[in-house]
Amino acid sequence: MTENWEERFGEERSRLNEIVLASAPLGIRRFFALDEQAYEAGALPAKTKDLLGLVASMVLRCNECISYHLIRCREAGVTREEFYDAFNVALVVGGSIVIPHLRFAAERLETLLEAR
Amino acid sequence: MTENWEERFGEERSRLNEIVLASAPLGIRRFFALDEQAYEAGALPAKTKDLLGLVASMVLRCNECISYHLIRCREAGVTREEFYDAFNVALVVGGSIVIPHLRFAAERLETLLEAR
Amino acid sequence: MTENWEERFGEERSRLNEIVLASAPLGIRRFFALDEQAYEAGALPAKTKDLLGLVASMVLRCNECISYHLIRCREAGVTREEFYDAFNVALVVGGSIVIPHLRFAAERLETLLEAR
Amino acid sequence: MTENWEERFGEERSRLNEIVLASAPLGIRRFFALDEQAYEAGALPAKTKDLLGLVASMVLRCNECISYHLIRCREAGVTREEFYDAFNVALVVGGSIVIPHLRFAAERLETLLEAR
Amino acid sequence: MTENWEERFGEERSRLNEIVLASAPLGIRRFFALDEQAYEAGALPAKTKDLLGLVASMVLRCNECISYHLIRCREAGVTREEFYDAFNVALVVGGSIVIPHLRFAAERLETLLEAR
Amino acid sequence: MTENWEERFGEERSRLNEIVLASAPLGIRRFFALDEQAYEAGALPAKTKDLLGLVASMVLRCNECISYHLIRCREAGVTREEFYDAFNVALVVGGSIVIPHLRFAAERLETLLEAR
Repeated sequence: MTENWEERFGEERSRLNEIVLASAPLGIRRFFALDEQAYEAGALPAKTKDLLGLVASMVLRCNECISYHLIRCREAGVTREEFYDAFNVALVVGGSIVIPHLRFAAERLETLLEAR
Repeated sequence: MTENWEERFGEERSRLNEIVLASAPLGIRRFFALDEQAYEAGALPAKTKDLLGLVASMVLRCNECISYHLIRCREAGVTREEFYDAFNVALVVGGSIVIPHLRFAAERLETLLEAR
Repeated sequence: MTENWEERFGEERSRLNEIVLASAPLGIRRFFALDEQAYEAGALPAKTKDLLGLVASMVLRCNECISYHLIRCREAGVTREEFYDAFNVALVVGGSIVIPHLRFAAERLETLLEAR
Repeated sequence: MTENWEERFGEERSRLNEIVLASAPLGIRRFFALDEQAYEAGALPAKTKDLLGLVASMVLRCNECISYHLIRCREAGVTREEFYDAFNVALVVGGSIVIPHLRFAAERLETLLEAR
Repeated sequence: MTENWEERFGEERSRLNEIVLASAPLGIRRFFALDEQAYEAGALPAKTKDLLGLVASMVLRCNECISYHLIRCREAGVTREEFYDAFNVALVVGGSIVIPHLRFAAERLETLLEAR
Repeated sequence: MTENWEERFGEERSRLNEIVLASAPLGIRRFFALDEQAYEAGALPAKTKDLLGLVASMVLRCNECISYHLIRCREAGVTREEFYDAFNVALVVGGSIVIPHLRFAAERLETLLEAR
């Protein structure tokens, strides 16, 4: 069941971030801010940066990070064909060990594109 | 509950592969073919190559890849003693961070060997 | 639901260790012993070594290892502020890819500190 | 001394590729072809794909791969500001462990931009 | 020749940091500041944090990061026996793939301790 | 210049091991012993275990470990064709990020096979 995963993902992420930030020292808070800002449009457009975040998350094999960047990329207007082009780069760089994460991303992508 | 995991694993893998391949560009399809072919008997027998895939999956810490190679190794006739010899190499090379994956592999191995 | 995770974690760990050790060759048994001994007080106190294990587990991104070292650190008397100082080092060294594991650790830490 | 690194890098890469391909089975040859093709313009432009390859190489911490993608990105017209935007994403995702590779990339980038 | 590596290491690091910071956007500059601050004494003493950085660098297998944290740890008064206790944790967690980095660290440590 | 690398590699390895073992606590000494023993013939022949060590070293991208296992595999009688079959598995599992290490291994292999 991946239906509505996007909503549940966002709620769980917010719930846990609150726990972290309730106790986090300044260094952690600042890191969270830097992380947000890294994907804002600058010399490169936000869409390209979101794709960079997606591919980095795939080769480092983090499903939660993949989910986050799939949502952001979709919001930035990335098309199915563009997503798969990025998946291809991640697969070739990272190898077959990336395949389970590619499968995960592909399934979640379908629900994101249907919901659009 | 790990009973029947092998069947469920195969079904889920097929279901997700269909989603990927329905949209995958040629590069991804070719990668999937290369991945299959890498384990076919060549200068090294298939059994050795499956063991190479298993140990690589353990040191890279991917449970889904471990499951896949456990099944293939069992089909190639790898015995419990041979499995544990391979686990030992993976553990020494990869360190204690591999232990949770060793536990996972050990439990799944029992159901594979019982089913034989 | 993370309530009582500590007890369930310990039981599951013991159950799986028994499966491993029932078939493990001498090399694996000796590795398990070395792993235990590495965190015993020596030139460095046990508390420092447990924190080293925790941060290593975070940058290598293993939730099961994080759970194990959270429990040990709590038993060694690590305070919330000390935990978060260690989380901060792990986050800066390992980057945003560590954040899902930081969230996981933060939630589990709350139940550990409440139970104290 | 990083002067002329680009030329030496290309020559060494060609020399070693010849050694590999003289003995490589079909699977390795096909992988090398897939690797080339993954960065060709498709749904995403070549420049974006080269940036994806660069950031993936940085978070996976491979200086040789970074050198290769720096050259390709420069050829695709990536500007200094765009390079640093990509470096920033790699640094935030991958953490301070990426910094030595960021320093390496920054120095090599200067000679590439001067040579343009 | 590892003689005087500490001085050369510091000079090279400064030279390259200047290149990075001459072009770095705000995000990278802020990350560099966060990285410095993460090791300042807080709930945990600076010595413990430097050891956390050292072990994280060893399990992530970055010689440059290891060199940096060796110097900081030595300045914080870490003794040979304490260094080796930390090396032991890194070795057990990260496995034999860490051994080349342990050898590297051990040699550099000798010159640091002699110079003291 | 890779001529005679095997001899220099062995000497450097011995020199550094002496430095480590002069100060190493019991845990590190025991780990070194376990590491040796993991590749001794058991349920699997030594040749297979050496190949497991080689592929694990390639996907974890450690040139020093690759050198060590190349020498051991050659001593166990691994042929050029068998080496390349193992390289192929490592490449497919680990992706293009393994290519620089494949090039390194291929060059060193030539000198090993010539010397035989």
